[in-house]
Amino acid sequence: MTAPIRLAVVGMGKIAHDQHLPAIAAGKSFELVATVSRHGEAVDGKPFFNNIDELAASDVEVDAVALCTPPQVRRTIAETAIENGWHTFLEKPPGATLAEVVALRDLADEKGVSLFASWHSRYAEAVEPARDWLANRDIRKVTIIWREDVRVWHPGQHWIWEPGGFGVFDPGINALSIATRILPDPFFVETADLDVPSNCAAPIAARIDFRGAKGTPISMDLDFRQEGPQSWDIIVETDAGTLKLAKGGSVLTIDGNEQRQPAEALHGEYPGLYRRFAAIIRAGVSDVDLSPLRLVADAFLRGKHNSVEEFIE
Amino acid sequence: MTAPIRLAVVGMGKIAHDQHLPAIAAGKSFELVATVSRHGEAVDGKPFFNNIDELAASDVEVDAVALCTPPQVRRTIAETAIENGWHTFLEKPPGATLAEVVALRDLADEKGVSLFASWHSRYAEAVEPARDWLANRDIRKVTIIWREDVRVWHPGQHWIWEPGGFGVFDPGINALSIATRILPDPFFVETADLDVPSNCAAPIAARIDFRGAKGTPISMDLDFRQEGPQSWDIIVETDAGTLKLAKGGSVLTIDGNEQRQPAEALHGEYPGLYRRFAAIIRAGVSDVDLSPLRLVADAFLRGKHNSVEEFIE
Repeated sequence: MTAPIRLAVVGMGKIAHDQHLPAIAAGKSFELVATVSRHGEAVDGKPFFNNIDELAASDVEVDAVALCTPPQVRRTIAETAIENGWHTFLEKPPGATLAEVVALRDLADEKGVSLFASWHSRYAEAVEPARDWLANRDIRKVTIIWREDVRVWHPGQHWIWEPGGFGVFDPGINALSIATRILPDPFFVETADLDVPSNCAAPIAARIDFRGAKGTPISMDLDFRQEGPQSWDIIVETDAGTLKLAKGGSVLTIDGNEQRQPAEALHGEYPGLYRRFAAIIRAGVSDVDLSPLRLVADAFLRGKHNSVEEFIE
Repeated sequence: MTAPIRLAVVGMGKIAHDQHLPAIAAGKSFELVATVSRHGEAVDGKPFFNNIDELAASDVEVDAVALCTPPQVRRTIAETAIENGWHTFLEKPPGATLAEVVALRDLADEKGVSLFASWHSRYAEAVEPARDWLANRDIRKVTIIWREDVRVWHPGQHWIWEPGGFGVFDPGINALSIATRILPDPFFVETADLDVPSNCAAPIAARIDFRGAKGTPISMDLDFRQEGPQSWDIIVETDAGTLKLAKGGSVLTIDGNEQRQPAEALHGEYPGLYRRFAAIIRAGVSDVDLSPLRLVADAFLRGKHNSVEEFIE
């Protein structure tokens, strides 16, 4: 048995508490050795620091870090981590811009550390089965509907409305991380309508039309103002019937018949991410797929902004 | 002596007439064999076609194409060209989105043809000397000022104001193509203010603050409303003095002293592009540097939109 990988978690916000700490504790590959957050926060009596430079200057021995801060402040933290020779797990989105993630990947290659641009929704239990089923189908039409209540899922996350926070594309990029994984061909933004509240810098809703490399129409409907039932659905019409991936990638139906997954597949998204992070560290490689972030950037690049009613949380 | 490469030019607008046709005629590497444009237009009695499918169906033998259409319609034309086994020269910007250019590069690799994402400003005569001079300097501050009169330089080019036309980033991407070539380290968008006329989808002016990988501040001031003297300047302050690259990369001064280029360097941007295109075809490789387009996408992704006065050409 190999020794666990000594891990520090940086950025002790909602996602660190809700997902990272439980996944780390549940697995055997990582051992939490420290936490870093602006206000300092001890977890299980482990050492804690106010910033990554203090961690680097301490005598805590670290092999890897998981960066859970908002994307806007992540680049320099990741740079410091990689420069220190630490394997680095980036929460999604991996950065506030594409160029910074490309540079981090190059730096990780240079320093011989593993960089992981994580996409948690790809580890939802029905995503790989959906990919397998679609691999040889003729895809006719794709509909992505991702409508959720920002007040429920992102309470107090002001960074999401700032430039680089992406607004409704923060959940929308999860949908794109699944779509880029399950669809057999690449696809491209043709039109994008972005509804931006008059008091925010990022969209609260968006409608995007993509075109697949073989001409397939792909539409995406994102809305952060959804009350009542929430929707995280991808519907793929094919020559062999209609596939529906519902509840963010966890429920698969083909022509209305639910396809139950074997028990061993039911491990949860973040435990899956941490297994993958451990695997790339052992293999000495990085895993940085930029395609979901690239499509979001393309939607902004080619998008039309509409000013809409202000958003008051 | 090898036979010239048989070339068709697609999209007979301003750039094709002003730059491509003269550069092709002046060089020995290419022979113009056909033109393609929506309304059909004969050049020097050569065969002409209304679209690329008609060219492909004809008996004109073609080795390569230069695509000079607006970026929004270029993807499917480029796909057809590559599928036909034609080496493909993309005017700048290489596409209206990043994902489409990545897919074209993959397709070109698969088909064994050379794809060239051209950046004409990189072939201005003082760009390589500036790169050489900066290679080992400590860069302290960079100022990019690109202010021109859209009515003079882009008359009737309505596509520039449409989504995917990039507005003032159409010239601004030229500045970025130079900056990414001459500066020794990568740089990243930190803030971007985009001024979008109330009747347009793309910005008429923008102010972007970048940060270099080593902390260097880099500012860019883009404006399409400049009357009188026009500015296409990049000023780089270093430990060894101040470099100024003026007139779009054609005039280099160090601490105010103009550095004259040797006569053999004075060949012009488009002749340089066509020499490069011929060289990559002979070498059997592609040349697709996405970094200028990626920075523009990042500026939109991280940008704040301000609605400004409408633009009437």
